Amino acid sequence: MPEHTVASRLQLSGLCFLLQILTIILFAVFVRYSPESSVGLCSQQLNCSWRNQDLGFQHPRFRDVRLQVLLGFGLLMAFLGRYGPGSVTVSILIVAFAIQWAVLIQGFLYFFPNDKIYVGAQSMVSADFCTAAILISTGAVLGRVNPLQMLLLTLLGVTLFALNEYILLSLMGVSDNGGSLTVHTFGAYFGLMVSRILHQPRVDKRKKQPDTGHQPDVFAVVGTIYLWIFWPSFTSATTVQDDTEPWAVLNTYFSLVASTLATFVLSPVLYEESTPRMVQIQDATLAGVAVMGMAGEMLVTPFGALIAGFLAGLIPLLGFRFLTPILHSRLKMQDTCGVHNVHGLPGILGALLLELVFPLVAQGSRTVATQALCQFCALHVPLLLVAEEGCERRASGKEPSTSTLV
Amino acid sequence: MPEHTVASRLQLSGLCFLLQILTIILFAVFVRYSPESSVGLCSQQLNCSWRNQDLGFQHPRFRDVRLQVLLGFGLLMAFLGRYGPGSVTVSILIVAFAIQWAVLIQGFLYFFPNDKIYVGAQSMVSADFCTAAILISTGAVLGRVNPLQMLLLTLLGVTLFALNEYILLSLMGVSDNGGSLTVHTFGAYFGLMVSRILHQPRVDKRKKQPDTGHQPDVFAVVGTIYLWIFWPSFTSATTVQDDTEPWAVLNTYFSLVASTLATFVLSPVLYEESTPRMVQIQDATLAGVAVMGMAGEMLVTPFGALIAGFLAGLIPLLGFRFLTPILHSRLKMQDTCGVHNVHGLPGILGALLLELVFPLVAQGSRTVATQALCQFCALHVPLLLVAEEGCERRASGKEPSTSTLV
Amino acid sequence: MPEHTVASRLQLSGLCFLLQILTIILFAVFVRYSPESSVGLCSQQLNCSWRNQDLGFQHPRFRDVRLQVLLGFGLLMAFLGRYGPGSVTVSILIVAFAIQWAVLIQGFLYFFPNDKIYVGAQSMVSADFCTAAILISTGAVLGRVNPLQMLLLTLLGVTLFALNEYILLSLMGVSDNGGSLTVHTFGAYFGLMVSRILHQPRVDKRKKQPDTGHQPDVFAVVGTIYLWIFWPSFTSATTVQDDTEPWAVLNTYFSLVASTLATFVLSPVLYEESTPRMVQIQDATLAGVAVMGMAGEMLVTPFGALIAGFLAGLIPLLGFRFLTPILHSRLKMQDTCGVHNVHGLPGILGALLLELVFPLVAQGSRTVATQALCQFCALHVPLLLVAEEGCERRASGKEPSTSTLV
Repeated sequence: MPEHTVASRLQLSGLCFLLQILTIILFAVFVRYSPESSVGLCSQQLNCSWRNQDLGFQHPRFRDVRLQVLLGFGLLMAFLGRYGPGSVTVSILIVAFAIQWAVLIQGFLYFFPNDKIYVGAQSMVSADFCTAAILISTGAVLGRVNPLQMLLLTLLGVTLFALNEYILLSLMGVSDNGGSLTVHTFGAYFGLMVSRILHQPRVDKRKKQPDTGHQPDVFAVVGTIYLWIFWPSFTSATTVQDDTEPWAVLNTYFSLVASTLATFVLSPVLYEESTPRMVQIQDATLAGVAVMGMAGEMLVTPFGALIAGFLAGLIPLLGFRFLTPILHSRLKMQDTCGVHNVHGLPGILGALLLELVFPLVAQGSRTVATQALCQFCALHVPLLLVAEEGCERRASGKEPSTSTLV
Repeated sequence: MPEHTVASRLQLSGLCFLLQILTIILFAVFVRYSPESSVGLCSQQLNCSWRNQDLGFQHPRFRDVRLQVLLGFGLLMAFLGRYGPGSVTVSILIVAFAIQWAVLIQGFLYFFPNDKIYVGAQSMVSADFCTAAILISTGAVLGRVNPLQMLLLTLLGVTLFALNEYILLSLMGVSDNGGSLTVHTFGAYFGLMVSRILHQPRVDKRKKQPDTGHQPDVFAVVGTIYLWIFWPSFTSATTVQDDTEPWAVLNTYFSLVASTLATFVLSPVLYEESTPRMVQIQDATLAGVAVMGMAGEMLVTPFGALIAGFLAGLIPLLGFRFLTPILHSRLKMQDTCGVHNVHGLPGILGALLLELVFPLVAQGSRTVATQALCQFCALHVPLLLVAEEGCERRASGKEPSTSTLV
Repeated sequence: MPEHTVASRLQLSGLCFLLQILTIILFAVFVRYSPESSVGLCSQQLNCSWRNQDLGFQHPRFRDVRLQVLLGFGLLMAFLGRYGPGSVTVSILIVAFAIQWAVLIQGFLYFFPNDKIYVGAQSMVSADFCTAAILISTGAVLGRVNPLQMLLLTLLGVTLFALNEYILLSLMGVSDNGGSLTVHTFGAYFGLMVSRILHQPRVDKRKKQPDTGHQPDVFAVVGTIYLWIFWPSFTSATTVQDDTEPWAVLNTYFSLVASTLATFVLSPVLYEESTPRMVQIQDATLAGVAVMGMAGEMLVTPFGALIAGFLAGLIPLLGFRFLTPILHSRLKMQDTCGVHNVHGLPGILGALLLELVFPLVAQGSRTVATQALCQFCALHVPLLLVAEEGCERRASGKEPSTSTLV
């Protein structure tokens, strides 16, 4: 990080103060706890499509709400741990802001004709999803933007995330409980686009930073452990259909296991070492959960989950070796933490798998196939949203337009 | 730590052995598992007011008992991780003893006319609360007392904690599910009082030890993550009224988030660095949960939780900068880990907030206001108890009496 | 680790690839998700004795299935963290394979006459148990076998574990929910036997490696914390009788606490330091949970759990001091991580305690005593299985037979 003068130090402090005061005022005016039933978030709302869950107080899923929030924060912390000790404080700043804004902006979208936003545990889980996506996109520009720019990007990212999620889940009816599209793919491509816009030819020295951690560091180990423990339960916590729950959990576990093994298969071929580094295992774990985000609930055979996980586990290694240099030299996109390889491509693979593999293995009815097709189309929404945003930014003169991603 | 001779080494070993044997004998004579229903701790007891929860076996909260114990230990471990690698072993010793004694002493208080103490999962949760308070007070004297003295202080602290909790919760009917008063305020002021009694003018070299951790250390990161994940669920796990549960969870999350931001606002103003250290963020997190201990269940608006958290997050920074030097020079109290700033003052703020802010934001009835007033009075009980204990100690000639805290 | 040539590197990669492809094919042919009710694993099966749990969809324990898998992975990760940063990657490889094979082999055993294996959440929990045992046995040979040999040992270990568990739980009806015999004792003695077979007189330099960690390392602290948090809930998650659940949890906590204290009592006597090292505390914690594996559900008094835990906490210290040198010099068994002291002996103590102490403290009926006797006999099954396996290996000429363990 560059030296911070007194002015820049107080700039960040002042901006935080102003934004927090503004948020408190907006909360005071608009946000209330759901009055009748503090759990059934929108039982009284007519136009409510909040994750399609009309939870009443007597609903058997009620007992899980607290567990969901618990898991949601476990997820956040797993991502947070991923960026290592040097950037944890900034990441915590982003988490703290993103959660508040996500509650606000998602509330405005879903409760639009009302004059109040009624929040409950579900809002917090949804805000966790949003913050996870922001943390992913942060990984693409880490070390190249200062905390002040990070805050502004967070504000922009939260808005786009909420819009993207609203279009996909509420308007198109896509099932994406594990967040393949809304969290992983959106987060990765938003981060890449920001990285492209912020491209400065001279600041290339931090590019190879994620490759330097040769000894298995504590944060990668703890992060991987958190992901193994919390993610599968998290995937299922947001599942709509009750009876598919255990499938989603088990599919995610099988995917995790196979993606880890794929690292052990490919890493000695591509690199010099006999066993993969801990960071590579963590990348494979993330890819394994990213690919199961959408398909987890639908895949009905364990070996399908094994194959999907195995393929997903190959992606980060191949991406870091072959794709990242091309992205950097041709498209001028520096992807500091490789989020494109770890989140972007596996998320897309998850959506593609549903389209290609699903009809072969499903014993399902026509509705399932239609759903899968619809899911595939849904893939293009985050890409379009991000691309459009990139164009707008470039059109506004901040960056000479050379090429686009999509 | 000073050099330990063979004698002092075996002293600690022998004392541990004697105390453990004594505890086992007391358990053998007095403690039994609750016979009829191992969950409904005191369903058959007439004079039972154990946290006001007459849980029967069919109660829907039954399924949470295991989760509560899980969370209770998560809480303990979060505090334990706070003291860094150097003092973890001693902290574990204290945890191991405090849990056993808390079960015994709380059992004696609540089951007094019976000849047996019937323990269940609730007793373990209650013992966890007590041990957390002991760990907090340990933070005030860390590095200045040897393990042997720690053990004796633990025995004293557990007894006072149980007495304090019994007066507040059972006799006065105060609602303090998150432990603002019973855990945070009691722990901090008991620790400060012990620190005052143990004051030795010449041993000042460790005073500034908590300020030396410049790089974000692993323990502070892991501790903060644990607190974010476990504490809000823990607050709600002990809530009496079923329908206020999600409020307590969400209030705690909003408070956490705002207190973290407050650190980013104030830290650059008071200190030279542009971003706060990880330890400061952890302090703010603790202050954010301490302030929500009592108010969490009662605050009925999200922005109230944001404001309370923001104010609480300012306290540790201001306290370390301005109050700790005064405490040390004027009142001769060395607060090694700054527990007064992190636990004591935010806990008091939580009790004050209930009194001052609550009537303004509540849509509540008169009962709520009376309850809040009663809570405010309850604030004085731990202070009095601790002060009295300090006087007794000083009266017994161990320390020249100069001034008192309260 | 020795230098790896290109050939040995690709050997591991190729073996992983072949085994993963083979596993996927076996999964494709044999493994399906349970069709009718994805939770009630074997509600439609006649010959089903899968942990004696015929869970239907309406069963109140249904809500815990996800928690069980969560806890199961917490357990795995606790063990994984035990082996320090240097060997985490290899341990993760073993975990990833062992889970898949455990699902397969346990499935073949329990669903034998069927042509398909129907897996559910219970299979995953059972596979977690198996993987934990494999990780324990890994601890005995860590640093002396290469990853390739580890993989083959894992395959062998999973098969023997499944056989052992099938004989104990299904044929003999032993109650071993915490895995005293199936996990701890089996894992330790299988590891010891492998260590004996692999004995090479010249490679003795890593023998004392576990004693070198003088400063309390992060992994030992995090591992201990995980065990304290997750293990007791895990013990109870697999309990058969609903009303004994809280006993199992509380017994495990009391045992944990007392075993930790035992370390503080004995460590200063045997070693030079005044407080035990973090690694010793972790060993005591593991011994404390190992001893409660079988007895946890049956002990009906808290002081019994305290005594059992206290005795178990003494074992690792005594074992490392007196037994490990004898094992190494006389029986040529190098136990790199001391699994015999930490898992083997406490597991046996747990089985013995049931036999010796149980009739004295139980208010129970005759059935309980018979059960305890049966449990005691069950102790010999893992020892015999492991011994026989050792003989077979030696008979096949890989090692000059000198002496056996049992």
